[in-house]
Parts: sequence; structure tokens; C-alpha cells
Amino acid sequence: MNEDTKIWGLGIGPGDPELITLKALKILQAADVVAYPAPANGDSLVRAIAAPHMSGSQEEIIISTPMVTERYPAQDVYDKGAAEISAAVEAGKSVAVLCEGDPFFYGSFMYLFARLSESYSVQVVPGVSSLSACSAELALPLAARNDVVSVIPGTIDADEMERQLLAANTAAIIKVGRHLGKIKAVLEKIGATEKSHYIERATMENQRIVALSDLDDESAPYFSMIIVRRNGEILDQ
Amino acid sequence: MNEDTKIWGLGIGPGDPELITLKALKILQAADVVAYPAPANGDSLVRAIAAPHMSGSQEEIIISTPMVTERYPAQDVYDKGAAEISAAVEAGKSVAVLCEGDPFFYGSFMYLFARLSESYSVQVVPGVSSLSACSAELALPLAARNDVVSVIPGTIDADEMERQLLAANTAAIIKVGRHLGKIKAVLEKIGATEKSHYIERATMENQRIVALSDLDDESAPYFSMIIVRRNGEILDQ
Repeated sequence: MNEDTKIWGLGIGPGDPELITLKALKILQAADVVAYPAPANGDSLVRAIAAPHMSGSQEEIIISTPMVTERYPAQDVYDKGAAEISAAVEAGKSVAVLCEGDPFFYGSFMYLFARLSESYSVQVVPGVSSLSACSAELALPLAARNDVVSVIPGTIDADEMERQLLAANTAAIIKVGRHLGKIKAVLEKIGATEKSHYIERATMENQRIVALSDLDDESAPYFSMIIVRRNGEILDQ
Repeated sequence: MNEDTKIWGLGIGPGDPELITLKALKILQAADVVAYPAPANGDSLVRAIAAPHMSGSQEEIIISTPMVTERYPAQDVYDKGAAEISAAVEAGKSVAVLCEGDPFFYGSFMYLFARLSESYSVQVVPGVSSLSACSAELALPLAARNDVVSVIPGTIDADEMERQLLAANTAAIIKVGRHLGKIKAVLEKIGATEKSHYIERATMENQRIVALSDLDDESAPYFSMIIVRRNGEILDQ
């Protein structure tokens, strides 16, 4: 641990509280202040994942994110959060920012990092990503040997999604949400439905796995993923 | 933990022993037998990463892999390893198989999994991948919003590599090794050298980071990666 570091982005893992690393756990428990995002009208999921490891006596900074489906919080949310974290550091405190999964894998921590890392030493502690969690829970190896793996947001348009899917051996489609119908249509078009596996809330208590061909839902929760093993090398071995 | 499970693939993390998860640590310490790959003529790296957490009194199964550069061990290595693990389970023992990084992210564990999972309950405990470790140590967010991230083995040919690089917002080139020259040439051709970051042995004591434009090495160690952020959305925010 860098003695000069006062700000950490902590990967807390995908959902199971036991999937936190020893390093993140130590920093979490030693920090003066714990910061985390929370929706304006609800509980913070990442705070809930970390809760079994917290004494409850630490100061907390809540980065309130008025997230609307498919829109991103305005960047002033991160201006405000960064200002609060800066104020804590200037008062001599250390701050651990909780991040679901891995901080730099589609995480909003990068916006705080961009604001804080010019003035302070900010360290990122990598965590178990949703990608690794989904692969493990599906019992589906992601890649071997010369396979190319692509992570594709479900938000991109159908033509681009098709192009990306055809270029990769394994694809992980994230941010499924209300794009489920579009995604299913693209997978059907390229003949990959039978090779696609749907999982939501991996490693959480309400985890759910459904073969894509059996999935009748019209939309999916935020924490869902479709893994497509189109033509990889694993099964040839 | 599934009471019936007697075999685990444990993600031990990328190198720093503190980057093991609580879940993997508990299973590692409770297992009757610890199994791991080791080169025929050297020490096992994953055994060394896990060593601080082991009592030394557990039975060990060494899966000896006569790995030649750029070739893969013959599959009979895994036949033999799976047979030894099966024998231990049949004798009433539990077996933890140590895996560097994440077991299903280009790990050889999948070959044992394919052999053992038909007869036994085999659980995978996801780990912090080299991808997350390299991103954290480079202080380089991998992806935001609609970015596509591709993981590209350095072993594929130059034309295909160029095509993959041009299709992704962020690319992580793994298995750099003796392909470093080819990779550098492709990145130079597409004008991405200045956007490329080289790291070897991330989170290990001998970690090394070099801007790709300053890297004069003719080859790279196995544990190296080049991350290319070509045209992502992060810096636009």
C-alpha cells in the first residue's frame, strides 16, 4: 500500500460479499471515509455488497446519482462527489470508493478518477468483474488459445452488434436491459441463439440462468449478461 | 458452498497474494488436496502466489506441463491430471485446483473442467483477471458506456489483428511473447502506438510499465499485455 495514497477505488466484486479480495477488504476496513454511488430513490447495491465487512462507524459519502433508464447521470454528480472526497482528504482523512465488480471495467469510478488523480495519488484495487462471475456461474469457459473475446454493450445498434459478434469467438453482451429484444433478433439472425447463455445477478442470492432460447422476458435487469460462444477453440480440444 | 462439491477451480488472482478473494482463500485452506500446474523444469508460479496462504501440510498434485514456447502441452497432461484428481475425490478428499487470474479466462483449467465435470460437481470461483490487474496498474480505465472491448491474443496473424484492433474501442493484446515485433508493427500501421501501453507482470514484485513507443525489447515475457485505447468514450466526458 502506497503510504501517500489517500484515495482508493476498490473493486468489491460482482455481488457475493465473499468475492472481495483481501486487499480491498483491508483498505475498506482501514479507511476513514467510505464513498459510494446510490440511486436518488433507492439503496446502494455496492454498499449492500460491502456491508458485511463494514463496522458501520465509518463516515460515509453518498454520491447520489439520479439515473434514468438508458441515460447517464449528469457529470455534475461527479463534480460534487469529487469535491466531497477532496474535502475529506484535505481534512487528513483517507477515502475508499466502493465499486461494483472491477472499477475500470465500465465503472463510473473513472469519472471520479479523472477529477481526482491530477491532485492526489489515487489507487485502483482491481476486483472480480461481472464477466468472470458470469462465466464461472454459467460453467462456461470464455476463451482459449487464439480466441478473441469481445465485450459488447447491448446499447449499440443492431448492424454494429452483428458485425462485432461475427468478428469474435466469444462475445459477452452487457447492459442488456430494454435492448433484449434487439439482441435476441441479432443472435437469431446469425444463427447463434443456441450458443447463447443468459444470466442475471450473477453470484447474488437472486441469480437466474436461462437458456436464451427459453427466455421470454421482454427486458432484463441492469445486472444481466448474455455470453455467446460462437466458434471458439475450447470444444475442439 | 455446495456441500456436494469436491473439486474447485480457484481463481488466485493476477500475482499479488492479497488479490485472492475471501471465498477462494477459505476453500484453499479447507481443501484436503491442492492441485496446480508447474513447468517440467521450474517452479509453479501459481503455487508461489498462493503460498502465503497455505499451511504446507496439504497433499499436493502437480500437473507437470512440458510447455515449449508457443506450443501447448499435449492433452494427455490433462488426462493424467484429471485421473489423479478423480482418484483423490474417490478416496473421499476435496481438491482445490489453483488457477492464475481467473480460471475461465484463457486458463488451462478448462481442460480439467471438461474432463471432470461430467462425473463430479466442479465449481469455479472467479478471480481477478490479468485484464483488470493491468488496467488498474496502468491507471487506465478500460471502457465506458458504449465502448467495445476486445481481448486479442498476440498469436493471431497481422491482418486479423489489424481488423480486430480497428473494430474495438479498447483492445487488450495478451500473449505478447515473441510476437512483440509483429504487434508493434500493426499498432504503428494503424497509428495507435501513442495510445498503447505496455505492462509486464502486473501486481507482481517485478512489475514493469513502459510506454510502447519507448519499448525496445525484442520479445516479452508470458505475463505481459498491451492495452490500446484507440477511440473510446472515456476521454470525451
